Amino acid sequence: MLGRGTVGGAFAQLLAEHADRVQRVTGLRPELSGVLSRSSGSFEEILAGSDLIVELIGGIEPARGYVLQAMRAGRHVVTANKLLLSEHGDELFAAAREAGVQLRFEGAVAGVVPVIRVLQESFAGARIDRVHGIVNGTTNFILSEMARLGISFEQALAEAQRLGYAEADPSDDVDGRDAAAKMAIVARLAFETPVRLDQVRFEGIRQITPDDMEYAREFGLGLKLIGTAERIDGGLSVRVHPAFLYPGHPLASINGPFNAVTVESPEITEVTMSGPGAGGPQTATAVLGDVVSAMIPPASAAMATAELPLVADVVSAFYLHLEVADESGVLATVARLLATHDVSVKSVVQKGLSDQARLVMVVHPVLESRFMAAMAEIAELPVLRSPPRAIRVIEEEFGVS
Amino acid sequence: MLGRGTVGGAFAQLLAEHADRVQRVTGLRPELSGVLSRSSGSFEEILAGSDLIVELIGGIEPARGYVLQAMRAGRHVVTANKLLLSEHGDELFAAAREAGVQLRFEGAVAGVVPVIRVLQESFAGARIDRVHGIVNGTTNFILSEMARLGISFEQALAEAQRLGYAEADPSDDVDGRDAAAKMAIVARLAFETPVRLDQVRFEGIRQITPDDMEYAREFGLGLKLIGTAERIDGGLSVRVHPAFLYPGHPLASINGPFNAVTVESPEITEVTMSGPGAGGPQTATAVLGDVVSAMIPPASAAMATAELPLVADVVSAFYLHLEVADESGVLATVARLLATHDVSVKSVVQKGLSDQARLVMVVHPVLESRFMAAMAEIAELPVLRSPPRAIRVIEEEFGVS
Repeated sequence: MLGRGTVGGAFAQLLAEHADRVQRVTGLRPELSGVLSRSSGSFEEILAGSDLIVELIGGIEPARGYVLQAMRAGRHVVTANKLLLSEHGDELFAAAREAGVQLRFEGAVAGVVPVIRVLQESFAGARIDRVHGIVNGTTNFILSEMARLGISFEQALAEAQRLGYAEADPSDDVDGRDAAAKMAIVARLAFETPVRLDQVRFEGIRQITPDDMEYAREFGLGLKLIGTAERIDGGLSVRVHPAFLYPGHPLASINGPFNAVTVESPEITEVTMSGPGAGGPQTATAVLGDVVSAMIPPASAAMATAELPLVADVVSAFYLHLEVADESGVLATVARLLATHDVSVKSVVQKGLSDQARLVMVVHPVLESRFMAAMAEIAELPVLRSPPRAIRVIEEEFGVS
Repeated sequence: MLGRGTVGGAFAQLLAEHADRVQRVTGLRPELSGVLSRSSGSFEEILAGSDLIVELIGGIEPARGYVLQAMRAGRHVVTANKLLLSEHGDELFAAAREAGVQLRFEGAVAGVVPVIRVLQESFAGARIDRVHGIVNGTTNFILSEMARLGISFEQALAEAQRLGYAEADPSDDVDGRDAAAKMAIVARLAFETPVRLDQVRFEGIRQITPDDMEYAREFGLGLKLIGTAERIDGGLSVRVHPAFLYPGHPLASINGPFNAVTVESPEITEVTMSGPGAGGPQTATAVLGDVVSAMIPPASAAMATAELPLVADVVSAFYLHLEVADESGVLATVARLLATHDVSVKSVVQKGLSDQARLVMVVHPVLESRFMAAMAEIAELPVLRSPPRAIRVIEEEFGVS
């Protein structure tokens, strides 16, 4: 492993935790044979003692030299270095081909969201027309906060810095350069065309005002920093700029420090992938996924080695729909009966309908067997006009905002 | 190729169209060496003349026998047969391991949405806690229509059948069995645990009424047929049932005949993938992606062979924000100026602010160079109180509903 920053630390920990599992999947046990940091370690020694090099230094040099030297020495390389790939992609890919080694870089774009793998492998049989992406979590967080709270860019940036979503010098993120580097990589894979960072037009979000957000709301639009790579008139356009999206767009609902990419092609219509942007653990997971893939050909024969017992009774919230006689005390009767089975009511709607009433409620999560026992007793109540009906409710809130 | 149905036809066409591209990527040219249908072709002859078998017959026999025989003869197999994998997974995966061949099946779950590949490869370094999926497009379409139009299950089913989203006998889909087979496959990969279809609890959507939808709206919930595979108390629960989702859930916004899967793990938080469900072209694309992957180790060295020229000037809609003097005729002046550059106004909001006014508009898509030329002239207008501001608007509506 070259480099020992946030991602490096997270990767080392993840590798230790998952070594057993990786061994089960690949038949080989991954071990960290050496770590190169600014102050310690020798690249030559690490290279000599390794089958695979994980480059997490970032920036161009010395990362570029190490990666080239490692591949020429026959080592697979896994990196999350978007700058290196977007500026020296041609040289690196040529070196990998020449040496017959793998160069993997899922962590360079959208963290653990599997954009790279899917473009390279899943859609190898599709002619891609366009890729749209929210590939910078910092700016997406800032824009989400501006929209949600009506605050200024400066206020939202300060909040992002406080929460660790933006760096002390946020220029690369807020000016669009980080997103541009990622879109250069995406465009290369999607369109088999060499694209360098300096060929990507980019604009950032410093100029966006709360006013823009307010008027956008009047038009029913949401604002994102969008990377686009698309075929146009037999050519290719790769660019990054703020853009308003209509609510039906699959990227319109991506809020907070999340990333998402939509791939469009006649064969697949459109496929969207979303998830947390590049934090330490997420990027480290992407790197470990690449390491596992480099260790073996893809796990075509799914090994079922860890036998978990199958669980029948699970906890769930429920929606409960009752048609009852319109008598006083019905709600109390039902509520008491639910309570005896530890079923707790979250919300209720009751509606009278001539001589009968509808009682509809959502109950808090409870073991299904308990809820079903309560349902069975409710079904026997003389006030019931038809069998009780229940549908599960999934309670979790997702995303960050 | 075994089988000649909708997917088979689409696959044969796709293969012919993309043979050149696949040859560029893999160095090998794929050719259909034979097709086995009910009325023609000999399996033994096809096997003898092929390096890889694509099984698109569906059902258990004769598909099972052919797939086993092909793998034992050293052929890679690509299949989209969810029933076969969910009922005979152990036997098939063991045979693939023993023969040292690849068994690939992306098309079996969620069409071209790369659930299988991502679970097997990208997340090999993550401990997955839960997978939630909308893995049946027919039922998602029916539920979307019930919610959108307030119609009954029967009416929505008839509409789905009319549009080709549901079969004449829709039982497998609407009773949840199709989704259960897919969740058995997903659970095996996510949790390294052998799960058979008969171990998956499932319920369908026949019992859902317009009333349920209406009350759900009052609670702010949306209804989906959800497949769940999750760790519980050291065990595994795999089940399919209708469930209400709160609006923040990443699956809540998946409408129409779409599929989507959310994977949760401490390392990755949550990653969501969505796209069109299993139609002929989508499943065929997934099958071709598998074929390409089986032909070569993953394309680690991204080949940039097709050089597309980079396009600078693209078409875009714009939001335009002007601070102007509050004089009569300003809107007319601006509109005329836009018109001279072929920029057409879609919507306008004008607001007076003491002695000045804000003029905010969205214009229809236009070549960016034209719009920028209009902007430059607008900036020179004496009525302008500050520089004009423009942000792009992405116009496309996505999804189906």
